Amino acid sequence: MNEVQPTIILVEAQLGQNIGTAARAMANFGLDEMRLVNPRDGWPSEWATKAAAGATHVVDNAQVFKSTTQAISDLHHVYATTARGRDLAKAVLTPEDAAKDMRERTALGQRVGILYGREKSGLTNDDITLADSIIMAPVDPEFASLNLAQAVLLNSYEWFKLGNWSLGDGSREDGAVKQAGLRLAGSWPATKEELVGFFEHLEKELDEAGFLRPPERRPSMVRNLRNLFQRANLSEQEIRTLRGVVASLVRQHKRSK
Amino acid sequence: MNEVQPTIILVEAQLGQNIGTAARAMANFGLDEMRLVNPRDGWPSEWATKAAAGATHVVDNAQVFKSTTQAISDLHHVYATTARGRDLAKAVLTPEDAAKDMRERTALGQRVGILYGREKSGLTNDDITLADSIIMAPVDPEFASLNLAQAVLLNSYEWFKLGNWSLGDGSREDGAVKQAGLRLAGSWPATKEELVGFFEHLEKELDEAGFLRPPERRPSMVRNLRNLFQRANLSEQEIRTLRGVVASLVRQHKRSK
Repeated sequence: MNEVQPTIILVEAQLGQNIGTAARAMANFGLDEMRLVNPRDGWPSEWATKAAAGATHVVDNAQVFKSTTQAISDLHHVYATTARGRDLAKAVLTPEDAAKDMRERTALGQRVGILYGREKSGLTNDDITLADSIIMAPVDPEFASLNLAQAVLLNSYEWFKLGNWSLGDGSREDGAVKQAGLRLAGSWPATKEELVGFFEHLEKELDEAGFLRPPERRPSMVRNLRNLFQRANLSEQEIRTLRGVVASLVRQHKRSK
Repeated sequence: MNEVQPTIILVEAQLGQNIGTAARAMANFGLDEMRLVNPRDGWPSEWATKAAAGATHVVDNAQVFKSTTQAISDLHHVYATTARGRDLAKAVLTPEDAAKDMRERTALGQRVGILYGREKSGLTNDDITLADSIIMAPVDPEFASLNLAQAVLLNSYEWFKLGNWSLGDGSREDGAVKQAGLRLAGSWPATKEELVGFFEHLEKELDEAGFLRPPERRPSMVRNLRNLFQRANLSEQEIRTLRGVVASLVRQHKRSK
């Protein structure tokens, strides 16, 4: 596939077999960019190759990362999949709405990715905080757990539906996407690397100022702060502005030391 | 489920395991009426129960038939799923269109069912001939084969999407509805007064730090900063956090004066 497509990121997937079936689900819908964060049983995996049932190109080209932060660093917009509601202030999209959002963004040349968590427990709140919005599939609340490959399947399917495809009987359909043009704040969206760079800058200064205390509360304070800025869909330019704001506020303090 | 729902009919499924994962996919979307035509490895099946991963009610209540004709005898309208085009003069529907058609029919009290074929070879032309229309999912033609559970999943998902569901956060949606709204965690959204209070606090400190210069650029710098925070839909609590951040960054500076 030459079109810009969402990257599928499996965070700490436990079984190679599930990585393989997820790869197969991706291939069904023309996706081939897979990233793995610390696959539990190591990589490469014979089980993954076997379970991919022919989608070996996806498995063979999968990139492995040591952290979710690294895995998303070059992406502009990231979605986190969850099966249950989380107490995080983020937009929650259906797979269908997320697919529309992805089509709009990729049409503008943005790189997007979808995070999927561990088979048993899903994504951590820290992982979800790194994302711009949450995808939840509508499911029967009494039987809400989708397996990994099926979750990948639904989002990949919704993505594919909005592209150009035929049913193999010659009836051509137009991509349903209208290039509505996103309201982006001035400039190009920041990459996750730029965003995390700002977070780390801010947190370093707040540590020095003694704001992120006591230590046991630091993780949730950091998460809430990151989440708040995350929601703003910051542009490259805005990241620079915010770094300037932080530097400016602490400057005289530093100079006086 | 009390509503009239489509019956899922697996024709000569080969592996009990696949029947189980299909049952699980049904349960994810509130379906529980499964019929089996000559399951190859016999019935009941321990493998099926195990693979159903909790959807045992679907497996336990599955009815077994000796022929497709018998399995569909009490239904009003039947759909046949196929992965490849067939030279049969029948309407071909996407899963989405088929779901709409099913909803319309069941609303009128009609009983409908979906036929799925063998894992390896799909439905025979004889089976397809018994159906009223064909369902084909849009897939990458270079990797078109969906496994049985995934095919069941897609159609069940499209059916469920058109029903009444919520995303687990209490916000009720009706079938046609698109937007899953913003979830604000923890606290109440800030009033504009609180928001402007934060803006003025930040801008006062940035004026003192000499950041909002030269004067002719100040209005646009302020506008850009306000706009960026505005977009985050800040809560009351987050406003307090941000005021704490600003105060903390400038505190030592002030003290040292």
